[in-house]
Amino acid sequence: MGMTITEKILADHAGLTEVVPGQLITGKLDLALANDITGPVAIQEFAKFETDKVWDPAKVALVPDHFTPNKDIASAELSKSLRVFAKNQKIVHYWEQGRVGIEHCLLPEQGVTLPGDVIIGADSHTCTYGALGAFATGVGSTDLAAGLATGEAWFRVPESIKFIFKGQNFQPWVGGKDLILYTIGKIGVDGARYKAMEFSGEGIAALSMDNRFTICNMAIEAGAKNGIIVADEKTLAYVKERAQRPFKVYESDPDAQYSEVFEFNVADIPLQVAFPHLPENSKAVEEARGIKIDQVVIGSCTNGRLEDLRIAAEILRGKSVHPDVRLIVIPGTQNIYKQAMKEGLIDIFIDAGAVVSTPTCGPCLGGYMGILAKGERALSTTNRNFVGRMGHPESEVYLSGPAVAAASAVKGEIVHPQEVA
Amino acid sequence: MGMTITEKILADHAGLTEVVPGQLITGKLDLALANDITGPVAIQEFAKFETDKVWDPAKVALVPDHFTPNKDIASAELSKSLRVFAKNQKIVHYWEQGRVGIEHCLLPEQGVTLPGDVIIGADSHTCTYGALGAFATGVGSTDLAAGLATGEAWFRVPESIKFIFKGQNFQPWVGGKDLILYTIGKIGVDGARYKAMEFSGEGIAALSMDNRFTICNMAIEAGAKNGIIVADEKTLAYVKERAQRPFKVYESDPDAQYSEVFEFNVADIPLQVAFPHLPENSKAVEEARGIKIDQVVIGSCTNGRLEDLRIAAEILRGKSVHPDVRLIVIPGTQNIYKQAMKEGLIDIFIDAGAVVSTPTCGPCLGGYMGILAKGERALSTTNRNFVGRMGHPESEVYLSGPAVAAASAVKGEIVHPQEVA
Repeated sequence: MGMTITEKILADHAGLTEVVPGQLITGKLDLALANDITGPVAIQEFAKFETDKVWDPAKVALVPDHFTPNKDIASAELSKSLRVFAKNQKIVHYWEQGRVGIEHCLLPEQGVTLPGDVIIGADSHTCTYGALGAFATGVGSTDLAAGLATGEAWFRVPESIKFIFKGQNFQPWVGGKDLILYTIGKIGVDGARYKAMEFSGEGIAALSMDNRFTICNMAIEAGAKNGIIVADEKTLAYVKERAQRPFKVYESDPDAQYSEVFEFNVADIPLQVAFPHLPENSKAVEEARGIKIDQVVIGSCTNGRLEDLRIAAEILRGKSVHPDVRLIVIPGTQNIYKQAMKEGLIDIFIDAGAVVSTPTCGPCLGGYMGILAKGERALSTTNRNFVGRMGHPESEVYLSGPAVAAASAVKGEIVHPQEVA
Repeated sequence: MGMTITEKILADHAGLTEVVPGQLITGKLDLALANDITGPVAIQEFAKFETDKVWDPAKVALVPDHFTPNKDIASAELSKSLRVFAKNQKIVHYWEQGRVGIEHCLLPEQGVTLPGDVIIGADSHTCTYGALGAFATGVGSTDLAAGLATGEAWFRVPESIKFIFKGQNFQPWVGGKDLILYTIGKIGVDGARYKAMEFSGEGIAALSMDNRFTICNMAIEAGAKNGIIVADEKTLAYVKERAQRPFKVYESDPDAQYSEVFEFNVADIPLQVAFPHLPENSKAVEEARGIKIDQVVIGSCTNGRLEDLRIAAEILRGKSVHPDVRLIVIPGTQNIYKQAMKEGLIDIFIDAGAVVSTPTCGPCLGGYMGILAKGERALSTTNRNFVGRMGHPESEVYLSGPAVAAASAVKGEIVHPQEVA
């Protein structure tokens, strides 16, 4: 019987020729990652194992990106813990503050995550790497510690849902963020619980890698175990200039089994805005029109990549952020920052009156760099709009892609980009 | 009898022809300023006055720069309080996050502070504006509230101390920061308590405005009521392209009275490093040689100006920050940031592995953006190295100018810039 790409990757890493959904397997890891919040907890747990060395220092990535540069004494201690562990364990993929970026932007950029990999990360948005055709999933810090010690993790093979995006006739400004918000709006935040979301079709093929990362990044917002897109020419072009080790491309068999299949025509998908307080509250941007906002954030592991910044800059060029709005732009990595500078995007942001931050997760998780006061409302390109996610429990977060975010920053209220252009 | 520049400014603003040290006067204010920490307290106090309007919305500056972009919910509420007050009171000199900078860099740049002004600010480094030939001093939030209501403040006329910097033969890399640290080292942190520090001589005349701001900025670190430098050609060149209202240049009379006079030859002043935990612990950089550091901060109202960044970049060009060091560079304003970008300085910083932050006071006061863990040691171009100033009570801060800071970031320990160049 045919297997899905997810099943094939898991089977191979478990040393099996076939797996079926529901099966418990132990898979070899290609990468285990953690950040400055989850890493220190995993390090404490790791200390309880018999070994005092990680299984392979070249297969561990530790990325201080959440509360860095150190927000306070507590976060300084967390970063220190990560730093000391990285040094003692001779971790290859550790980046000090200033050389770093948001983990899910940084690791693909640096060629650390590759097609066909099995990746666990103590961060829920680890599923991002599925855009490379890898099996990547978030785990708790304890599971990560076991992974660090053994190089393996157990998985229950997930059922797969197939999402087929038909056509390539996208509405203006529509991108990966709109496709995934639309999808989550259709199936709900538990619509793919513990399942693999396999994104396919002409619509996906037409998208850039940056847009594909955005899509797989938010698979977890539908409850998925992983999101995945088969590696194609674009993937290989992206990966080949970065990879420093071999990798393998897997594809779903034509007769692979899916628990559900959804077909969407990209031409039917308008620009999306997810209303508070769940990503599933996605609606066409027109339905959000006129909602006043206090802050706009453009960045994060979801939409902090170069194309996101280019789109935002295209809209902001020669315009000013509305006087009542704070716009915070956060490039995902130092390389993205540098390239954005080179292209004049940072100038456009500053001329428009935006904060340009060093790469950090900061405001997305209510960490720092743009926290909301009581009653304030943000429009953000990040991935979660839960109650109090960006600050006060009585604040609100709306989610969108970079085009709607930039246009709304200019207007002071949520608008379609065409109203600003 | 002759008067000092400080006495003349105060006399004029009190409507008197003469004042003497110790005299209590009420002076008219040209500017009253507050930030996102002190402003909200002043606003609460202001509400207790009979008036509900500030005396002159064009003479008030409110600058959210300390915990912004909002670090947490508490700071978000502080910024909101400032924003609402600014809007209600139609405050002319209010800058929203993203259009802002560090107050003491921003206000001179924007032509808001001018020669001959009497300025009070609810921030101890308000004395910075003395570099323009203004009388500028820090006050508490309650005094500021009274100023907002009445447009006046009472002062006890300070005695003046004259500091004469002879010669122009500066040692390599020596700048304003070294002169002021050297001075504080000589007289101690209470050496000028409630006095005016009047900086003069060929050495001062030779310095750029950026260097002069650095000197007056730290007058408070010797306990001074104010620091002041007579406006000369350089001052007028700086001011004339910025001023939007008339101003008056005051000079000390040849027979003005000083409580003390110090003469230093600039050729005798080596690069300085102030050891923990007081700015008066200044020593020649050679005495600090080899002290290992975890973090370097280049920025702040003391040394976050364009020339500071140019010096740092000159040293960092083509080099890398030491693997064990985090280097955090913080341009003082958005204009400084933009100009630094244009000159390629930001590229140099990022290539070297530095964090480049949006303008903020952040780490200087232990706010955020680079807080120290227990046992960590920073070298910083900021103004205070008190116990726990930048983080954990068991962390340490050394102070220097930008050249020593940049060189030490490369070396991983405190060094003279010649060791890196």
